[in-house]
Amino acid sequence: MPFVNIKITRDTVTADQKALLIQGVTNLLRDVLGKNPATTVVIIDEVDTDNWGIGGESVTKRRAAGK
Amino acid sequence: MPFVNIKITRDTVTADQKALLIQGVTNLLRDVLGKNPATTVVIIDEVDTDNWGIGGESVTKRRAAGK
Amino acid sequence: MPFVNIKITRDTVTADQKALLIQGVTNLLRDVLGKNPATTVVIIDEVDTDNWGIGGESVTKRRAAGK
Amino acid sequence: MPFVNIKITRDTVTADQKALLIQGVTNLLRDVLGKNPATTVVIIDEVDTDNWGIGGESVTKRRAAGK
Amino acid sequence: MPFVNIKITRDTVTADQKALLIQGVTNLLRDVLGKNPATTVVIIDEVDTDNWGIGGESVTKRRAAGK
Amino acid sequence: MPFVNIKITRDTVTADQKALLIQGVTNLLRDVLGKNPATTVVIIDEVDTDNWGIGGESVTKRRAAGK
Repeated sequence: MPFVNIKITRDTVTADQKALLIQGVTNLLRDVLGKNPATTVVIIDEVDTDNWGIGGESVTKRRAAGK
Repeated sequence: MPFVNIKITRDTVTADQKALLIQGVTNLLRDVLGKNPATTVVIIDEVDTDNWGIGGESVTKRRAAGK
Repeated sequence: MPFVNIKITRDTVTADQKALLIQGVTNLLRDVLGKNPATTVVIIDEVDTDNWGIGGESVTKRRAAGK
Repeated sequence: MPFVNIKITRDTVTADQKALLIQGVTNLLRDVLGKNPATTVVIIDEVDTDNWGIGGESVTKRRAAGK
Repeated sequence: MPFVNIKITRDTVTADQKALLIQGVTNLLRDVLGKNPATTVVIIDEVDTDNWGIGGESVTKRRAAGK
Repeated sequence: MPFVNIKITRDTVTADQKALLIQGVTNLLRDVLGKNPATTVVIIDEVDTDNWGIGGESVTKRRAAGK
């Protein structure tokens, strides 16, 4: 019954990669805590790089500056 | 002053249906807890089916498999 | 499969009131969008009034000021 | 290491305004709590006005009614 | 730079089990998407069973009923 | 009408410091986006250091190791 929310920047993430994240997190919760995969929910949020800040500046600016 | 976040898959949900969700949740909080509707905030997130996992696989795959 | 998060201030909310919120939101999603209650998840967060701000001040201070 | 999520309605918010929000919140956490800007994460969610409710109705409807 | 939030019911989860969740999710994001572990943040929320609903009733009630 | 959620580790944060965060974020949204302070909501979550991971390990372990 766990609920997992993964937030990543909106890059070229494929459906296959998302499927691997969903499967991997679900298996992890089964292995570590015995949680039932059938009721484990995983939601992936992809966030525009203008809308994601770290170090006081947006990821857009950081990437443009080669950080 | 409550804050409610509803996450659903991105399907053909209409503005009228969203309005019913907002009104219904707001009324529920008024009726059960006496919360003031004027300051009750409801946010609806629509999530792509590739980005929503349950049972270890995406909703996209589950629907394709007839689950 | 919807996921709902309700945030309210930590007051004397009873288990019965929480049960009414869970039931009410689940029924609402079934009635408006046809969502299956069996997989609808509702999580209630109770937040200390020091940690909840509106109008630029905490709920603790607002209540002390009779707002 | 703080994590901040800002939710606003999806209006014509510019990248520069988002940058000011990211910078401002990051500085605030440094000034008030001594948090290290290098590991402060800020995520801005822009929400459609149909999907944001207050007072029991959507922001779309409120604006159309001149509220 | 990913941010992951894991919500589970408040049971007897140990610090070691939490450490395994943190490590496992961080490694998963490195392996699938090449994300840098140094800036991957994981937050675990433990939720009282009165405050977690599924199927229209609280986990407290479901467990009492042997579900 | 913005909604802001600030997550920090559970340390000795005082009510006064929380009040400064609430006031500061509310003013920032007024100054940058013209948002009305009266309807700006800020929620602060304090997270146990066992439950907060970065770099693949909990903050508890990082602090014990002098990181």
